[in-house]
Amino acid sequence: MNYGMILHMLGWICYFEAVFMMLPVLVALIYRESAGYAYLGVMALCAVIGFLATRRKVRNRKIYGRDGLVIVALGWIVLSIFGALPFVISGDIPSFVDALFETISGFTTTGSSILSNVEALSHANLFWRSFTHWIGGMGVLVFILAILPMTGGAGMHIMRAESPGPSVSKLVPKIRTTAMILYGIYLFMTVVQIFLMLLAGTPLFDAITLSFGSAGTGGFAVKNDGLASYTNLQQAIVTVAMILFGINFNVYYLLFRKKWKQAFTCTEMLVYLGIIAASVLAITVSVRPMFPSLYQAFHHTAFQVGSIITTTGYSTVDFNAWPPMARTILVLIMFVGACAGSTGGGIKVSRLVILLKGVYKEILMACHPRSVKKVQMDGHALSHEVVRSVNSFVVIYAVIFVVSLLVITLDGKDLVTNFTAVAATINNIGPGLNVVGPTGNFGSFSALSKLVLMFDMLAGRLELLPMLVLFVPSTWRK
Amino acid sequence: MNYGMILHMLGWICYFEAVFMMLPVLVALIYRESAGYAYLGVMALCAVIGFLATRRKVRNRKIYGRDGLVIVALGWIVLSIFGALPFVISGDIPSFVDALFETISGFTTTGSSILSNVEALSHANLFWRSFTHWIGGMGVLVFILAILPMTGGAGMHIMRAESPGPSVSKLVPKIRTTAMILYGIYLFMTVVQIFLMLLAGTPLFDAITLSFGSAGTGGFAVKNDGLASYTNLQQAIVTVAMILFGINFNVYYLLFRKKWKQAFTCTEMLVYLGIIAASVLAITVSVRPMFPSLYQAFHHTAFQVGSIITTTGYSTVDFNAWPPMARTILVLIMFVGACAGSTGGGIKVSRLVILLKGVYKEILMACHPRSVKKVQMDGHALSHEVVRSVNSFVVIYAVIFVVSLLVITLDGKDLVTNFTAVAATINNIGPGLNVVGPTGNFGSFSALSKLVLMFDMLAGRLELLPMLVLFVPSTWRK
Repeated sequence: MNYGMILHMLGWICYFEAVFMMLPVLVALIYRESAGYAYLGVMALCAVIGFLATRRKVRNRKIYGRDGLVIVALGWIVLSIFGALPFVISGDIPSFVDALFETISGFTTTGSSILSNVEALSHANLFWRSFTHWIGGMGVLVFILAILPMTGGAGMHIMRAESPGPSVSKLVPKIRTTAMILYGIYLFMTVVQIFLMLLAGTPLFDAITLSFGSAGTGGFAVKNDGLASYTNLQQAIVTVAMILFGINFNVYYLLFRKKWKQAFTCTEMLVYLGIIAASVLAITVSVRPMFPSLYQAFHHTAFQVGSIITTTGYSTVDFNAWPPMARTILVLIMFVGACAGSTGGGIKVSRLVILLKGVYKEILMACHPRSVKKVQMDGHALSHEVVRSVNSFVVIYAVIFVVSLLVITLDGKDLVTNFTAVAATINNIGPGLNVVGPTGNFGSFSALSKLVLMFDMLAGRLELLPMLVLFVPSTWRK
Repeated sequence: MNYGMILHMLGWICYFEAVFMMLPVLVALIYRESAGYAYLGVMALCAVIGFLATRRKVRNRKIYGRDGLVIVALGWIVLSIFGALPFVISGDIPSFVDALFETISGFTTTGSSILSNVEALSHANLFWRSFTHWIGGMGVLVFILAILPMTGGAGMHIMRAESPGPSVSKLVPKIRTTAMILYGIYLFMTVVQIFLMLLAGTPLFDAITLSFGSAGTGGFAVKNDGLASYTNLQQAIVTVAMILFGINFNVYYLLFRKKWKQAFTCTEMLVYLGIIAASVLAITVSVRPMFPSLYQAFHHTAFQVGSIITTTGYSTVDFNAWPPMARTILVLIMFVGACAGSTGGGIKVSRLVILLKGVYKEILMACHPRSVKKVQMDGHALSHEVVRSVNSFVVIYAVIFVVSLLVITLDGKDLVTNFTAVAATINNIGPGLNVVGPTGNFGSFSALSKLVLMFDMLAGRLELLPMLVLFVPSTWRK
């Protein structure tokens, strides 16, 4: 373990958090809210800690995969702890456990809330809540990599640990340039969405916060009824935006490079869009009687499906009241998730494609034992390592799921609530069904359950391994 | 495909079914029931078909893995179709779909029923229902292998396809002797259970049928309230019997050979008993307030846990009324299942152990990339093939689960009913929760849903691959 380098990186995370908090301070100034002082105070604290931690010169800057995992896991925990303080200090969320839950839910782009009345929050806090989605969506460490020059291969290990999906595709040979391109695309698309929302008549504050939530596939809204009270046009813009932010960013880079054919034949994107189309079709038929027109049924189905599969978690209607088939499909696509290399969570479409291709190969091999086949995707044979890591991912995922379910079941809530609460947090979605449905919240869980669900949110966002490595004793040996 | 050999084996299955039906004919004679004629008629039909199918001499007796899978899959379907006829002809279950559901549920040792009033059945039909459990428990083809001499390696392929678990351990080099030893242990243990049940004052008919159900880990009872009205002692005998039949039969062979140390250190058995102990402890605490004494809470918890983890499916109380935590644990152990090489279903303890060991290895490798480790079990390194086949098993299992869930959700039942109905059938348990709970039944599902659940029962009992191979087009090429 390279403790020096880990401390150094944690220090930089504190520095950056101080910088991020300048935005809610600005919002507090505009709305003349006292919450701004809370942010100023935490900013100062972060700056001092960042200064102390980065002051010492790190002699050995070389890190290994293990250090990368630990940096990312601890980094996100540190980020969340300091990010939660303004909620507590400003008095909007007096309990630290609740504030931490809300902040982790923000950074991990989950969007599960313990609040029953979000409209009671100050604008600064509402803004910070949504802004954490935007930071967490592409990843805070990817952001740091885009800014800071890194030596000793540190960048690759950190990027691999923070990026979603079974394998990291470096867009360009240099990590720093890759990180800059990713954030460039991300920022550009977010600005376009804000602009379109404004054109559609959305108030500026709502346009910005909702766009942060769509871009990061987060899901915190600024109204108690979610997105129900916005116009059809505004909802439709969000629908399209969510689905676009769930696509692998490689595709956008390919488009930017004018490699049309490669972009439009990306297997993962096509499967992702196929699952969305099939789900929208099936659910629209199922919920048709609940809406005045076929168009309305389609409109709200498309919104909900887009929101769930991209793991955003916005809602325009209470889908908990939908028929069993519609709810079952929504629960299933909770697990599918978005594309790897997007801002979305879940198991990821590419993992499922790899799993299914691997299984098809096994079945063929049972019939024809002498045929030797390799699993292929987008014309490349997948390495044995990738296939195996996908298999492990699913097993680790299942183990975390089951253990979490057992702990939160102690609270005595019904089976559907417990199951979907874990599904909604580990997949970084936000709402589940029943008690944690779109009109409910996570406030009634015990502190223990909240801690478990926080772990699930972090594990889900960081793709499991970084959080697990913290529990392996040998990680901490020199 | 060796069509000649497949037809030949299917013929033998018909012959054996005719022989099996001599027992319900005997029961009908004793109770002077007209249902006996139905069995006599089907016996004659099976004998004629068996004669026609086995008459032609098979020149090429050599079969491959693929043929073994097809023989087993089609064999079980043929067995179930003829096995269902007496229920229809005798008029006890007029609908053929329902009768087929009941018979497949019997042979696959599931125990899910479409009947709301089993006491209305004739003794011959009740006996046949329970006897199908006993035949299906160890496997009809294993039975045939024990009787018929096989040449050309046919035995191994068939045995591998029908036996539960990730790998077949031949107890002795000869397949036929292995099959005879397995059936010998099975018969001996069943007779001991019948004897003990009689000693405990159980009527002969109940002692035999309930022992068939325990031995095959089936779950059809002969009373409407399941096993609720038997004495504590009788229930306790069944509890112990179920748990013993869920242990890998290798262990009994080792005991028989006086290899005490090897028998008592079998990893799978120890984990299996550990899961039972932990579940009983947790659920006893959870349901304590629902029973007059701690002993009663323990007694019924042990029965239900033993019944569910071994995938038997008997019940002494309505566990659907238990608190969420107890029900959650029961649903989870539905998936665990019994040991490989036992008569129980589910994913199997050894598969879970292999999965977890594989994952632990992956986590260690993420920390220490240069350490090379092989997954070990009971002192042997597991071959790469076994580990990979376990991974595929879980993925195929999940795919079948999800597709089945989507189809039966069309019936509009609640999510817990649908989820546990699929879990109860694919794991060959019997009852689930809510509509299909211990006091409910599967009668209200649509014919389509019943067909899907029948497929799940067969897929679960035959460990997925045989049923899937039927759907691969290249299987049917010469």
